[in-house]
Amino acid sequence: MQAVVIHAPKDLRIDSFPDPAPGHGEVRVKIAAGGICGSDLHYYHHGGFGTVRIREPMALGHEIAGVIAAVGDSVSHLEPGMRVAVNPSQPCGTCVHCREGMRNQCLDMRFMGSAMRMPHVQGGFREHVTVAASQAIPIAEKLSLGEAAMAEPLAVCLHAGKQAGPLLGKRVLVTGCGPIGALMVIVARYGGAAEVVVTDIADAPLGVARKLGASLAVNTAIEASVLDPYRAGKGVFDVLFEASGNQVALRSAFDLVRPGAVIVQLGLGGEMTLPVNTIVTKELQLRGTFRFDPEFELALSLMGKGLIDVTPLITASLPFTSAVDAFELASDRSKSMKVQLTF
Amino acid sequence: MQAVVIHAPKDLRIDSFPDPAPGHGEVRVKIAAGGICGSDLHYYHHGGFGTVRIREPMALGHEIAGVIAAVGDSVSHLEPGMRVAVNPSQPCGTCVHCREGMRNQCLDMRFMGSAMRMPHVQGGFREHVTVAASQAIPIAEKLSLGEAAMAEPLAVCLHAGKQAGPLLGKRVLVTGCGPIGALMVIVARYGGAAEVVVTDIADAPLGVARKLGASLAVNTAIEASVLDPYRAGKGVFDVLFEASGNQVALRSAFDLVRPGAVIVQLGLGGEMTLPVNTIVTKELQLRGTFRFDPEFELALSLMGKGLIDVTPLITASLPFTSAVDAFELASDRSKSMKVQLTF
Amino acid sequence: MQAVVIHAPKDLRIDSFPDPAPGHGEVRVKIAAGGICGSDLHYYHHGGFGTVRIREPMALGHEIAGVIAAVGDSVSHLEPGMRVAVNPSQPCGTCVHCREGMRNQCLDMRFMGSAMRMPHVQGGFREHVTVAASQAIPIAEKLSLGEAAMAEPLAVCLHAGKQAGPLLGKRVLVTGCGPIGALMVIVARYGGAAEVVVTDIADAPLGVARKLGASLAVNTAIEASVLDPYRAGKGVFDVLFEASGNQVALRSAFDLVRPGAVIVQLGLGGEMTLPVNTIVTKELQLRGTFRFDPEFELALSLMGKGLIDVTPLITASLPFTSAVDAFELASDRSKSMKVQLTF
Amino acid sequence: MQAVVIHAPKDLRIDSFPDPAPGHGEVRVKIAAGGICGSDLHYYHHGGFGTVRIREPMALGHEIAGVIAAVGDSVSHLEPGMRVAVNPSQPCGTCVHCREGMRNQCLDMRFMGSAMRMPHVQGGFREHVTVAASQAIPIAEKLSLGEAAMAEPLAVCLHAGKQAGPLLGKRVLVTGCGPIGALMVIVARYGGAAEVVVTDIADAPLGVARKLGASLAVNTAIEASVLDPYRAGKGVFDVLFEASGNQVALRSAFDLVRPGAVIVQLGLGGEMTLPVNTIVTKELQLRGTFRFDPEFELALSLMGKGLIDVTPLITASLPFTSAVDAFELASDRSKSMKVQLTF
Repeated sequence: MQAVVIHAPKDLRIDSFPDPAPGHGEVRVKIAAGGICGSDLHYYHHGGFGTVRIREPMALGHEIAGVIAAVGDSVSHLEPGMRVAVNPSQPCGTCVHCREGMRNQCLDMRFMGSAMRMPHVQGGFREHVTVAASQAIPIAEKLSLGEAAMAEPLAVCLHAGKQAGPLLGKRVLVTGCGPIGALMVIVARYGGAAEVVVTDIADAPLGVARKLGASLAVNTAIEASVLDPYRAGKGVFDVLFEASGNQVALRSAFDLVRPGAVIVQLGLGGEMTLPVNTIVTKELQLRGTFRFDPEFELALSLMGKGLIDVTPLITASLPFTSAVDAFELASDRSKSMKVQLTF
Repeated sequence: MQAVVIHAPKDLRIDSFPDPAPGHGEVRVKIAAGGICGSDLHYYHHGGFGTVRIREPMALGHEIAGVIAAVGDSVSHLEPGMRVAVNPSQPCGTCVHCREGMRNQCLDMRFMGSAMRMPHVQGGFREHVTVAASQAIPIAEKLSLGEAAMAEPLAVCLHAGKQAGPLLGKRVLVTGCGPIGALMVIVARYGGAAEVVVTDIADAPLGVARKLGASLAVNTAIEASVLDPYRAGKGVFDVLFEASGNQVALRSAFDLVRPGAVIVQLGLGGEMTLPVNTIVTKELQLRGTFRFDPEFELALSLMGKGLIDVTPLITASLPFTSAVDAFELASDRSKSMKVQLTF
Repeated sequence: MQAVVIHAPKDLRIDSFPDPAPGHGEVRVKIAAGGICGSDLHYYHHGGFGTVRIREPMALGHEIAGVIAAVGDSVSHLEPGMRVAVNPSQPCGTCVHCREGMRNQCLDMRFMGSAMRMPHVQGGFREHVTVAASQAIPIAEKLSLGEAAMAEPLAVCLHAGKQAGPLLGKRVLVTGCGPIGALMVIVARYGGAAEVVVTDIADAPLGVARKLGASLAVNTAIEASVLDPYRAGKGVFDVLFEASGNQVALRSAFDLVRPGAVIVQLGLGGEMTLPVNTIVTKELQLRGTFRFDPEFELALSLMGKGLIDVTPLITASLPFTSAVDAFELASDRSKSMKVQLTF
Repeated sequence: MQAVVIHAPKDLRIDSFPDPAPGHGEVRVKIAAGGICGSDLHYYHHGGFGTVRIREPMALGHEIAGVIAAVGDSVSHLEPGMRVAVNPSQPCGTCVHCREGMRNQCLDMRFMGSAMRMPHVQGGFREHVTVAASQAIPIAEKLSLGEAAMAEPLAVCLHAGKQAGPLLGKRVLVTGCGPIGALMVIVARYGGAAEVVVTDIADAPLGVARKLGASLAVNTAIEASVLDPYRAGKGVFDVLFEASGNQVALRSAFDLVRPGAVIVQLGLGGEMTLPVNTIVTKELQLRGTFRFDPEFELALSLMGKGLIDVTPLITASLPFTSAVDAFELASDRSKSMKVQLTF
């Protein structure tokens, strides 16, 4: 079996990889589609992000879907041939955070394609993955496997949407319109926002956002003044989803949001210098959001029922043997939103 | 009538001041006690804070209490001789934020002793103030006027306590133990915290915090390692009240608080460089808190019933004619917690 | 000017009515459309509901829209010819509940067409109404005046939606599919529910609900067993909107909702005998919801942007001179959802 | 080994009982104290409550504490001689409710001394119990084993306190002053209520409530008018803890609580006829509360630190061989608050 393995920054290889038979309670999934995520790109370009670094070769990938190829002992609800999305998240179920219902904060989390723990948890850009049966979620007939592979980033955004509290009737700003920002437009729209404004410094993704239902999509590099009416009073947006990880984007939003606004930070931007006095005097709430838990199945359910359509985001699909080309393409925001590998 | 008026940094004078008769719906209060607040000290030392600067002479002071001296037309529930605390906050009652119950965020707020608007709203360090009758709140018999003058900072801290959500059974950290930090110890304790740890870099205020019921008071300049057990797992505190306005204090708490923790920022610290990745991955909530609204009357009620005792905080009282000495004393954290002027 | 006036149960007349010129801050609106509400029907059939009874003749109606006919002094943002919806709610703005942002709970509320206070507040089924300018809200060009007259019941349902907390991804049950239940289907759908099931004991309204996007519409009089799968475990619905005011409907839902579910009660059903042990052991939350406040403008905004379409609910429009026929028609659930009067 | 076993209403016996050695991960606890709970009394007087009935002999008791007598394999943090409270609750850890952090709603809960499932889960009124090591919680040195046996009902009340949301500064009413009502007085007081009023129809428990810090304790059988001032406006209490399970008590509170008030229902009262219109128009929230989860350890922590003192509630201790006398005594509210058995 072959896998897409990162060895060092810019050193991405197609390597042979072990292919264990499914054990008790496990299934083997023949992977069909795998989306390239921002963190995959970070490993590819920089060898990691923040304090997380690759310390041994690691298969990348955690947005994957495929077909059940084999089932291990005591797995009765799945059988070969079933189409599934693979949930890359495997919390321990017993630590203090799992017990209190914050399983995404598990103290002993195993998350596919992540170098956070050593040895690294190998990712899903492989011809086959063998996972716990509970990680393989059957999908609706009308969903393609490419769409199913979008369940993970959509789950991230549904979780972020929940962090914001009720969205019904809210005025929402999304800063940054990569795949996560674009999915936040979908989620804010689906969650009942009265208005969804999205900003970026590139035109191509803003065009996608318009198709997804954004009320207004603004290129702040060339037309920032379009946002001036939103500075009325102390600012008007109830909720900000910050999806760029860029300090400039976050700072520029502080006078667009109203007192008491919730700012949900999705983008991993490292150290940022922030106007804390504004947070204090406007009583803003800056909330982090990280991964997901029940939202993975919710994402599949909403797509499966046709309530959410992510297909406008999938801008290219390349064979996994062209992974380097795919990663380069995914890095070019003028051409790409979500790039997927096929297996 | 005389007042304590700031003209420029370090230029604090005892000036003559107009003393208008109470008009329709107003009362004149003979001031007895006025507490010196951190913002008063900012005006005294620096002429303001953040972007707020004194642009004309302004009487300082917004923590005041006294005795009704005269009442204007149509004021029936107050009469001369009644002891009152003066609420320095006067929201408009009709703007969007007042209508939605966030009166402390009023777009047309008049707050005593604040240079935020021009002309400035004159403060309460005067022999008499004339205010709307609704701003003069009668106090319980057993409260001293010095205690009543603590209603304002206690209200600030009760409001901050509410921003944190439920405190019952929570593990609470307070960073910074000036008057606001010390009041937060009182509020966290009163609000049902299971544990209240407070940090500072000076010993004197930590001694006061111990009297107020802190579980542990740590001088981080000399014994930071005492906090190491609180870093267990991903950190253990449920709530942080950051009352120092100091970036170092805030940053040092990020690995002491647990996933999903609420950080209530009270201290006005200007620009701070923060580890946003930690906010994201631990799903922290950084919430500003500003002033108060119904908490002013609540503060008087809780003190009046003997449920909260602020007297350990009042470390000195000087006549207002010695205002410069009082401001210098209040600036010396080794000697002072709250310094009040008497009139 | 003529108005539709209730004198006693079943005694609904077209009476002459005073038509005051707009005073300071007021406008006169020439009414075009007025929807008949359940409470109007209660006055018509029973002379009131609960403890509320008509004690003097009262013009009915509080779901109204029309065209500005004249403006009083100091009204600058409205002018004759503008199309407006009329907000029937006029809170005092100064009582304790107004100050805390619960204006719909105003202690001195004036609500059009309500016999709660004496003298009654006259309703809006008149050729002209004169109201405070703040009650006349301009509408989008593409909205018909009939749709605009739906702003009030839609606002009620948006407020109910907020009472439920976040709806994103929730499984929602709506019991009772009159106009309010049907609007709740719209709101639950708009607010991001993953599934919206609606029940009634009549087929006609369930047909409307299907058009509005209900996942499933069940006639519990003939096919109650269709709901059996929703009893799995301890029940599955996260949220119930009870819009029938019927004890049987409410009780039947207790084993369909999951532990911790929120039950929002919209229907005014008087005394009901409830299984309190189930509320206790499943930790259910039964929440009332009453009227609205900012949701009136939100309703107009969402309809005006084409995000919400209420036209399938408007099943008939009759001239106000045929009010008795219209009230009888509105009372026949096999034929009518919302019946409006035209003026 | 002997145990206190219920066979039928009024048929409570001291029976021989098996005493299994602790298995893997288990401990044997020599019981020292066991509190008689209202549900124990229901089994004793009526053979059950609601639909729950004893269908086989069952040892009663779930408020127990004692000393570790033996430990099974792989138990390293406990050893013989350690004093512990026994948590009677054993959720499965894997069902949907356990996964989402609502372990008290576990679909496969095992709760000591409960006839909800068949075979019944045997209770703790025995000379020894053998439980999972995770159920045996070491206690502070200064706690007596009688106090430790109060951890369970205190945990119930801490959980109820959390259901109410923030208590800081709230005006709280407690209806019913048995052991649960009395503990709610403690919890409301500890959680920062501004005022705690408690009602009952017996004088003895009200006397205890006064010792526990109630602002006002009212015998509604003889002085209901004392509550009249609390009916001002639309009512004034922010929170009601209903601990009587009595319809009259709950109904009488509807005009004492303010709009938007939270009513936490602890008392199991079966069918109650309620004024749903009042719930609707005042937008009340009636919330159930059931058992506890992390609050068991919190209860021990708060008592162990001396922050909460439950000793005034323990009105009698009798040897378990006098169980019938103890149950009769516990049933006499004029003499008893909490009666404990000793072993």
